Amino acid sequence: MKTPSKQAYVPFVSVANMMKIVLHIGIERVMADLVQEIEADFRRWGKFDKTPRVASHSDVGVIELMPTSDGETYGFKYVNGHPSNMKKGLQTVTAFGLLASVDTGYPILLSEMTILTALRTAATSAMAAKWLAPKGARVMALIGNGAQAEFQALAFKAICGIDEVRFYDIDPAATAKCVANLQGRGIKLTACKTPEAAIEGAQIITTVTADKQLATILTDNMVGSGVHINGVGGDCPGKTELHRDILLRSSIFVEYPAQTRVEGEIQQLDADHPVTELWQVITGELAGRTSAAQVTLFDSVGFAIEDFSALRYIHSKLAETGMCEQLDIVADPDDPRDLFGMLLRSA
Amino acid sequence: MKTPSKQAYVPFVSVANMMKIVLHIGIERVMADLVQEIEADFRRWGKFDKTPRVASHSDVGVIELMPTSDGETYGFKYVNGHPSNMKKGLQTVTAFGLLASVDTGYPILLSEMTILTALRTAATSAMAAKWLAPKGARVMALIGNGAQAEFQALAFKAICGIDEVRFYDIDPAATAKCVANLQGRGIKLTACKTPEAAIEGAQIITTVTADKQLATILTDNMVGSGVHINGVGGDCPGKTELHRDILLRSSIFVEYPAQTRVEGEIQQLDADHPVTELWQVITGELAGRTSAAQVTLFDSVGFAIEDFSALRYIHSKLAETGMCEQLDIVADPDDPRDLFGMLLRSA
Repeated sequence: MKTPSKQAYVPFVSVANMMKIVLHIGIERVMADLVQEIEADFRRWGKFDKTPRVASHSDVGVIELMPTSDGETYGFKYVNGHPSNMKKGLQTVTAFGLLASVDTGYPILLSEMTILTALRTAATSAMAAKWLAPKGARVMALIGNGAQAEFQALAFKAICGIDEVRFYDIDPAATAKCVANLQGRGIKLTACKTPEAAIEGAQIITTVTADKQLATILTDNMVGSGVHINGVGGDCPGKTELHRDILLRSSIFVEYPAQTRVEGEIQQLDADHPVTELWQVITGELAGRTSAAQVTLFDSVGFAIEDFSALRYIHSKLAETGMCEQLDIVADPDDPRDLFGMLLRSA
Repeated sequence: MKTPSKQAYVPFVSVANMMKIVLHIGIERVMADLVQEIEADFRRWGKFDKTPRVASHSDVGVIELMPTSDGETYGFKYVNGHPSNMKKGLQTVTAFGLLASVDTGYPILLSEMTILTALRTAATSAMAAKWLAPKGARVMALIGNGAQAEFQALAFKAICGIDEVRFYDIDPAATAKCVANLQGRGIKLTACKTPEAAIEGAQIITTVTADKQLATILTDNMVGSGVHINGVGGDCPGKTELHRDILLRSSIFVEYPAQTRVEGEIQQLDADHPVTELWQVITGELAGRTSAAQVTLFDSVGFAIEDFSALRYIHSKLAETGMCEQLDIVADPDDPRDLFGMLLRSA
């Protein structure tokens, strides 16, 4: 059989290679780089084709496609969300993604994105907090100590200077896992027995639980004035974490309103409830935090542009690290009209 | 580094393995099998989540995601359409696709689909003709002799009993390629110098040209009574092949109206122009051809369920043929909550 042409091959970053790339660069450095990449793309928000993700819901979870394009490069992510997976020993969220040339439609990168999504989600949270959290914040409460938790802790350390994280989870084993994994990284790690204890003295409260239900992880009386809430786990219709009263007294910041109004905490509010788009804060068009007493909420659901930024970042590291394989996924006959002939001659 | 768990691996069908599978089974047999699979899925149309494909258009082409689900299995295809690629030595259409378990969201198959799309497009055309073409049709005109042409010819031979194909292309080299590739397969192959010559004596007319423009491959006076038109190339907004007058005197059959009204030949007609859904003909709910003089038109644009059927077919062949690789694309730590720990321990 003839060897496929060079164009037939697409660089592929496996899970093993993604872990190598991240450890080679350093996790906190990757977080800082990702914030830079995502901010740069948020600054040119108008250049992107934007659409709410295309979701296929079932009783137990959701499978989503998240496409976007800046006119030169197209990207999309496949991602699932299945809270019941954990009991089966499976990941709640797994993902992979692709970049392609808009000019030819040919893929230029296929990559695992379970790990990359964990990184970009944490980086986006820390980026938002950089613009919204009270000045001099040092202590973060981290409620929900699952697969995303350590990534959040490290991102807030690297980007926002958080040096104490107070953990709470309904399962103490999850908290113990986080505390063990984060030893020796320059963060004071405090395991708490109640959510109330976790938020004591915290200027930032991160909620990142996984149940697909309308939950109330935070009630109104738990949220003092001046805090920043990083609400990560409410990211699906019928899946929220915060009591509605908290939303009513917060300044709410979102990624892409058309998506967040369906999936985020603000699905609990009227469709015209005022929210600020994060990119407008980053460009300076609109204000972020305007007073010390203000409660700010980043209603994070995850948007396609963040995945695009993350994929482009990984793509930019391939030449330097060589940490990828070549995948024979594009049929590329010598004569482009002779696909059938290529098939025949492969015999 | 620890070896990834079994769940971390997804069977991957490369271009090389797809060609092996197709040649192992036999091209005409694959066509017949695909018609059976697609018909079976069209018969249970109501079971599927259906949405028009999500398209990202540019000046030179389109990149599309085509998802669907039957409640047990989820599938999607990535596909581009770039007519200008041919001049660069690239394929107009390349594609890959995925199947996943709805219960867990975990992928169960990743496959090249450039070749598989060529096969399923031809199989769908022949399936439609089986229900719509005049009885005893033996001669097909094939206008547009690019990458899809030979697949169409073989599908119509295998499914509809076509034994003469009359070829026309504005580039005689494309016609010569088809005639050379199809030698010895029991089809009379006639190269024609004009489209008028090609349709002489043909009961079926297939148009499968690629230009992204409102073209007129067939004018009204070229189409005699009683023929079946298989219009394949008009599959994008602003990309059609048939004169509007032909549409006005044809009985029009489509895959999924919400998509075809935007992308197909019928984008030239009023939004409420009557069309029949092909699945309703297959289930017997509605009539297909009702008279010998009727002009029938299958306005083919390609729908996600056809890709789903094709992917499931390939998936069903993997155990028997072993013609796939295992791709490390799902991060699957022993403790599903310990994604960060897996990353740390990979060092």
